Amino acid sequence: MNIKAIQKQLSNFADERDWDQFHNPKNLAMALSVEASELVEIFQWLTPEQAKAIMSSGENEHVKEEIADIMIYLIRMADKLNVDLEKAVTDKIAKNAEKYPIKLAGKRQC
Amino acid sequence: MNIKAIQKQLSNFADERDWDQFHNPKNLAMALSVEASELVEIFQWLTPEQAKAIMSSGENEHVKEEIADIMIYLIRMADKLNVDLEKAVTDKIAKNAEKYPIKLAGKRQC
Amino acid sequence: MNIKAIQKQLSNFADERDWDQFHNPKNLAMALSVEASELVEIFQWLTPEQAKAIMSSGENEHVKEEIADIMIYLIRMADKLNVDLEKAVTDKIAKNAEKYPIKLAGKRQC
Amino acid sequence: MNIKAIQKQLSNFADERDWDQFHNPKNLAMALSVEASELVEIFQWLTPEQAKAIMSSGENEHVKEEIADIMIYLIRMADKLNVDLEKAVTDKIAKNAEKYPIKLAGKRQC
Repeated sequence: MNIKAIQKQLSNFADERDWDQFHNPKNLAMALSVEASELVEIFQWLTPEQAKAIMSSGENEHVKEEIADIMIYLIRMADKLNVDLEKAVTDKIAKNAEKYPIKLAGKRQC
Repeated sequence: MNIKAIQKQLSNFADERDWDQFHNPKNLAMALSVEASELVEIFQWLTPEQAKAIMSSGENEHVKEEIADIMIYLIRMADKLNVDLEKAVTDKIAKNAEKYPIKLAGKRQC
Repeated sequence: MNIKAIQKQLSNFADERDWDQFHNPKNLAMALSVEASELVEIFQWLTPEQAKAIMSSGENEHVKEEIADIMIYLIRMADKLNVDLEKAVTDKIAKNAEKYPIKLAGKRQC
Repeated sequence: MNIKAIQKQLSNFADERDWDQFHNPKNLAMALSVEASELVEIFQWLTPEQAKAIMSSGENEHVKEEIADIMIYLIRMADKLNVDLEKAVTDKIAKNAEKYPIKLAGKRQC
């Protein structure tokens, strides 16, 4: 995924509509959490089995759109805060590996 | 960003710890929303100006980690649901451009 | 506020519609968080000044409804988990007073 | 539950610590959503059966505290916005009864 290209696209999108004024990181964090909840909402009354079958249901496009909405705000926020997304992910996976070593993993959930 | 490589890494990480049993999409959506709220929490008492300066504050590493946590669950969820993240984002940006045409954009916020 | 009376009303409401099957605490926690995000969404692009004036705007009924939705799920969840809401609140305020003693309060935000 | 008494208590609590400056409705909505996610987090990896048994687990006090945190922010927000909580709940239950009439309820979930 070409993060920088998407960031340029989203930056232009916001500028063309004079929306950059609203895109401070506090507002972007709120907007991102709202989209994350729209994804939760699709699953809230489903059993785990129904949840696993979601992409074979009438909600598959809805799921893709909410996932995209979260990704869009995350990429936009990383741009405004100058966070290298790929490095942040790599660093965190490494940190998680130390926090949850394999031999003790059975005792903790993540 | 090499999404497939990260998905392989996360899949191995979960398998090594026998965590795949917890990774149905309902639980992953919940976990993702929890991480999104941990990002919101960093900003909740800040003014917009303090929010814009967050990466010059003692919270810059915390911000990067929460952004990474959200991305990790998003990438994992897309893998479990077989969603092409890049296509989902491209499609949604196109849909947003239709929903918020430039000449009417001043009247709506996003 | 007569919590027990509202709990009886909500219990009947769910039974009449055969919805109790969906009201396990995991689902109720999800639904409550979704409503909390619907309240956040009203404010996400507003300045602090615009936020303070929200009840004089066209969104005042929307705010009341989202606040009610959160309260309804909270009261329902407390009923299903047999949590005494009033006692839980009293206990937590007391715990907060110890955690944030007045003379040190200026150094921490809540 | 004596809402006005709790509101007085919370108002004094904030004033004693000079925290009222942070309590605009935008920040309070964010804080409330963060607490709602802390409640979700308790359940995120649990099966529905484990979720139903939560109050017999080591997490019962944690659940009570998160429920209390959400209620505290809700009561505080209603005070700052001058929303009558009891009336808002009564009105919304009535509105829900119209939106989800009993004979059609089997086809929709809430």
